[in-house]
Amino acid sequence: MQTPEQPSTDAFVPTARTTLKRLAGRGHYDRATVHAILDEGLVCHVAFTMDGHPFMIPTAYARIGNWLYLHGSTANRTFRALADGAQACITVTLLDGLVLARSAFHHSVNYRCVVLFGTGEKVTDSQEHMRALEAVVEHVVPGRWADVRWPSREESLRTLVVRFPVSEASAKVRTGNPIDDEEDMSLDVWAGVVPLTMQPGTPQADPKVPAGKAPPSYATRYRRPLAAID
Amino acid sequence: MQTPEQPSTDAFVPTARTTLKRLAGRGHYDRATVHAILDEGLVCHVAFTMDGHPFMIPTAYARIGNWLYLHGSTANRTFRALADGAQACITVTLLDGLVLARSAFHHSVNYRCVVLFGTGEKVTDSQEHMRALEAVVEHVVPGRWADVRWPSREESLRTLVVRFPVSEASAKVRTGNPIDDEEDMSLDVWAGVVPLTMQPGTPQADPKVPAGKAPPSYATRYRRPLAAID
Repeated sequence: MQTPEQPSTDAFVPTARTTLKRLAGRGHYDRATVHAILDEGLVCHVAFTMDGHPFMIPTAYARIGNWLYLHGSTANRTFRALADGAQACITVTLLDGLVLARSAFHHSVNYRCVVLFGTGEKVTDSQEHMRALEAVVEHVVPGRWADVRWPSREESLRTLVVRFPVSEASAKVRTGNPIDDEEDMSLDVWAGVVPLTMQPGTPQADPKVPAGKAPPSYATRYRRPLAAID
Repeated sequence: MQTPEQPSTDAFVPTARTTLKRLAGRGHYDRATVHAILDEGLVCHVAFTMDGHPFMIPTAYARIGNWLYLHGSTANRTFRALADGAQACITVTLLDGLVLARSAFHHSVNYRCVVLFGTGEKVTDSQEHMRALEAVVEHVVPGRWADVRWPSREESLRTLVVRFPVSEASAKVRTGNPIDDEEDMSLDVWAGVVPLTMQPGTPQADPKVPAGKAPPSYATRYRRPLAAID
């Protein structure tokens, strides 16, 4: 396939939009942190301006190298705006825990979040297009692509694929215990963290699957995070 | 306290922005569905335009009646833009499962999502301000507010509270099994749903909490969804 020109693989250069002004210690600009968060998330939120109004859509995605791929229906007017090059802000947020401090003010959450700014390009190369569709399926359920019927030419034509360079990006991470004021430390209040994780349940077969057909191990043993797709 | 003027409690009237054009069967415009999703979520994403660029922040929130409350630091320039009346699009997304179809094309996710458009108003009444801070803590960890040190006057002055009417809103919901094409039904491919839920772990005490201090039941028995705050 035609490999898209890769954006720089150097560390991200913080821009005015990606530089954390407050709580700057939570900011991370290294590619490994940004990629790990993108690879663990399942859904991103994409914000853009359309007809002068802010819009947002939650959607699946996949990262291949330094590109983030989104896909959507050619019939979706909001997705078409992204394919047409609307400026976008894309966020992936992972919630890791609730931080219970001794004071209301210092309550917080532990999270890992990537914010990415950029302008998308419609993918026109048919091999890159198919590879992106594969990457989205494999990003969500690794191992699935080999088992399913692949997209027909007609299905591919009905699916827009848009890629964004993962370059103007930053991560914001909070971990650990509450940080209370010194004068609150003697209060008789339990403080700590309630961890949160996204957990898979038992796979539920479609009623039309033959009774003897076992669910695949990638479904019965599903877990996040997964290894990156690099 | 001064009760803010309530927006209409009638069913939502779909607008051009909230009406689902595609997959219209997934659209819900009733208040009960929208409120239930808002009440179960922990984090919303808020999109707005600043200096001509789309921006987005993930943040905690709470609903009181027909208002959605956000809070942020007075030192946060993005949050100040919301307090100053920037048009916003607010989304709460709950991921319920991975939908594994027989064809790649029909893979999907089960989710519940609310999209809300509106312009925020800075809350200036001190009692409404405090009630909103209470609501955010109680939204995330019901029962917590009674146990902690409440915000001082100085802390309140450092915290902006912005409210949005929950009126130009819609929900989008996908549930159930994959919907494959008829000609794919005989393929020897397992199909079904991998359910996903946000699960709490064992509360981790801050190291400075006295050894004999037990975690509160709202932490040890934490679960989503919770009852609404109405």
